[in-house]
Amino acid sequence: MRFTIDKEQFSKALNAASKAVPTKSANPILPNFCLTLNEKGLEVLGFNGDFAVKSTVPYMINDREIIRNAGVGSTLVNAKTLAEILRSIEGSEVSVEVIDEAIMKIDDGKFSSRLNCIKAEEYPDIDLEPSGTTFTISAYEFSSLIEQSAFAASQRDQRGILNALHLEAENDKLIATATDSARLARKECPIDSDVRFAVNVPAKAALDIIHMFDGAKNVTVSIATRKILVFFDNTVVSSSLIPGDYPVTRSIIPTMFNYTLEANSSELLGAMNRVRILSMDSEPVVTIMMDEEEVEVSARNDASGSATERISTFQYSGERLQVSFNSQFVIDAIKAVKSEDVVICFLGEMKPFVVKNPKDESVVELITPMRTF
Amino acid sequence: MRFTIDKEQFSKALNAASKAVPTKSANPILPNFCLTLNEKGLEVLGFNGDFAVKSTVPYMINDREIIRNAGVGSTLVNAKTLAEILRSIEGSEVSVEVIDEAIMKIDDGKFSSRLNCIKAEEYPDIDLEPSGTTFTISAYEFSSLIEQSAFAASQRDQRGILNALHLEAENDKLIATATDSARLARKECPIDSDVRFAVNVPAKAALDIIHMFDGAKNVTVSIATRKILVFFDNTVVSSSLIPGDYPVTRSIIPTMFNYTLEANSSELLGAMNRVRILSMDSEPVVTIMMDEEEVEVSARNDASGSATERISTFQYSGERLQVSFNSQFVIDAIKAVKSEDVVICFLGEMKPFVVKNPKDESVVELITPMRTF
Repeated sequence: MRFTIDKEQFSKALNAASKAVPTKSANPILPNFCLTLNEKGLEVLGFNGDFAVKSTVPYMINDREIIRNAGVGSTLVNAKTLAEILRSIEGSEVSVEVIDEAIMKIDDGKFSSRLNCIKAEEYPDIDLEPSGTTFTISAYEFSSLIEQSAFAASQRDQRGILNALHLEAENDKLIATATDSARLARKECPIDSDVRFAVNVPAKAALDIIHMFDGAKNVTVSIATRKILVFFDNTVVSSSLIPGDYPVTRSIIPTMFNYTLEANSSELLGAMNRVRILSMDSEPVVTIMMDEEEVEVSARNDASGSATERISTFQYSGERLQVSFNSQFVIDAIKAVKSEDVVICFLGEMKPFVVKNPKDESVVELITPMRTF
Repeated sequence: MRFTIDKEQFSKALNAASKAVPTKSANPILPNFCLTLNEKGLEVLGFNGDFAVKSTVPYMINDREIIRNAGVGSTLVNAKTLAEILRSIEGSEVSVEVIDEAIMKIDDGKFSSRLNCIKAEEYPDIDLEPSGTTFTISAYEFSSLIEQSAFAASQRDQRGILNALHLEAENDKLIATATDSARLARKECPIDSDVRFAVNVPAKAALDIIHMFDGAKNVTVSIATRKILVFFDNTVVSSSLIPGDYPVTRSIIPTMFNYTLEANSSELLGAMNRVRILSMDSEPVVTIMMDEEEVEVSARNDASGSATERISTFQYSGERLQVSFNSQFVIDAIKAVKSEDVVICFLGEMKPFVVKNPKDESVVELITPMRTF
C-alpha cells in the first residue's frame, strides 16, 4: 500500500474512526486503525467490539486531487500514534508507504517516521453493508430526535436495558424514548418511509453518532437484527443493539394536570443554578413553591445554609403547590425542550411532572419528584 | 459585620485568597475565608497551614465607592460556597450582613442566601506584617526570576529540599536556583538594595505567588526566619520556608565546552515535539545527532517504531556528537530561556550540557543526558 494524501482530509477521517477505537483493550488488534486503499479511496476503520466507524477519503473532492501516487493495499497501525503524528506535522500533504507488510513509512518532506504495523487479515470481519429496514431522514431531524431524548438514559450499568435509547417507528412516525426510571424523555418526528421496527440502541452510541454528522444533510439508517447502521457523507457508523424488551412507557406519561407553570427558560435555569449551590453535593435537590402571586425556588443544606430566589416572569394556574426534585433532571429537561419559555405541568406534590415546550408537542420530559421530609 | 460591595472587586479578592484555601483539610476551620471589615476595607484571608493570601478591597478606588453601608466586624465562612455564589449572581453589587455571629445573609436584590458562619476568633493567628530583610523589586523582574528557574525543582516529595527554589542575595544580585538532581535552572537579576540572605522557598508557592501579580508594578519582599512575605497592590502573600541546607550547585555548571549548537528555538521545539511521539510514554527520550553538515533529532520505541527530523537552520561547531536526553527537560529549558535562537553547549556524550540564551547570560539551564544503550 502506498499513497500521498491531503493532510486535512486524512486527519478528518482519522478523527472520525478514532471515536470507535478503544484506548485499552484485551484484544491487541483493536487499538489499531484498519487502513485500506481501494478503488473508492482510503478507508479508515475503527472498532471497539460493539461500535464501528468507517470513514472514506475519496481520490477527488470536486476538482481537487486528495490522494495521488496510489498503490492499493491494506494494513493495521496503532491509532493513537498515527493520529498524534498527523496532528503534529506541519506540511499540507503526507506520503505513506507500507514496506513488507511490517513497516509504515510516513513522510512530510521534513519529518519522517517508521511505524510498526500488522497484516490487515488480523482485523475482525465487520459487515458495514446496509441490510434490514432502511430509511433516509434529514440529519437535523435525526440529531434533534436523539439529542432531546438520549440524555435521560441511565449511565450506570453499561449493557442494561435502561442504558438504551428505545427507537421505534410506526404510522409514519419515529419515536425515541429514554428513561433511567427517575426521569423519562420522549421525542418524536415524522418519517417519510412506511417502516416498522422497535430497537434498543445504546444511548451513548446514539449520541456519539449524531456528534459526528458535522454538516451532513441527510443520513440513511439501516436497522438489522443485531445492529443499527448510519450512513452519512463518506462515513458509516455501526452500533450493536441492546437485546431485551424495553419497559412500556407510553401509559405513564400523564395528559391531564392540576397545576401549570409557564416561565422564561433562562430565568428559571439561572435561578436553579444559583440556589442549588446550597443543596447537598450528592443530591442537588431544589424546591419550587408556586402560587398565583409568587414563584420561588430554594435549596438548603444543614452544613452550609440556604438560598432562595423569586421568579419575576411567570404564569401559574392552580392551588398553592410545593415540589422538590433533583435539579439536574429539571435543568437537563428545560435545556432539552429548546424553547424560550417552558411549561411545567404537575398533578401533585409527589406525582411525576412534565416539562414541555409550549409550541412543540413532539417533545415531553417526565420527572419524578423527591421527598424532602 | 455589614457591607454592600462592588461584586467584581469582591470576586477578585475572593479569587486571590482562594489560592491559599485547602479544598479538604483535617482542620475544619481552614476551608473558610476569614473576612474582616475594618478601617482599611474588607480583608479576605485564606490559609492552608503553610501558604496565606490576604487581599484587601478598599472603600474607594479612584473616585468610585466600592464598599458602602459598612459596619465593621469579622467572620469565617465556607470559601467554596461563597466564591460559587459570587460567580453565579448577576447583579453588579451584593449586600452582606452577619447576624448573631452565626448566619451570613447575602443578597443581590433577587437571589438571597443565608450561609452558616463561624466566629472569627476560631481562625489561626497569622502575622502578615513585614519583618526581617526587606527589599522592593519590579514585578516583571521578580516574575522572570522565578518563571525561568522554579520549573526545574523536584515535584516528588512535598517538603524535601529539592522541592525548593533556592533564593539568595549578595553583591547586588538576586539568584534563583532549582534542581531535581537530573536538571538545574539558574537565573539572576540585579537588585538595588544591599541585602544578603539565602533561603529555600517551596517552588510551587513561588510560582503561585508570581501568577497572582496581575498587572502589579512593584513588589516588596520580606525574608524572615521561617517565612517569605510578598506585598503587591492590595495583596500580601506569605509562604513558610523549607528548612535545611540547599546543595552547593555553583561549581557544577561547566563554563568551557567542546561542542556548540545554535538553532532556532521554535524549529527545534517543533521537531522534538514531533519525534517524541515515538519515544516511550514513561521516558520521552530523544536523541540529537550533530555534525557540521547535519543536525537530526530522533526517537524510537520497540513497540511502535521510530521517527527522525532534520533541522534546517543551525550552526554547529565541534566533532560529530550524539546525545540522548529526557526531551521534556530540553523543551522546558528552551522555553525558559525565552529567546528566538537557543545555544546548547556540550562537553561530551554523557556529560551534563547547558541550554542558554545567546543574548542573555543571566539564565542557565543544565541537563544530564540519558544512556540509551
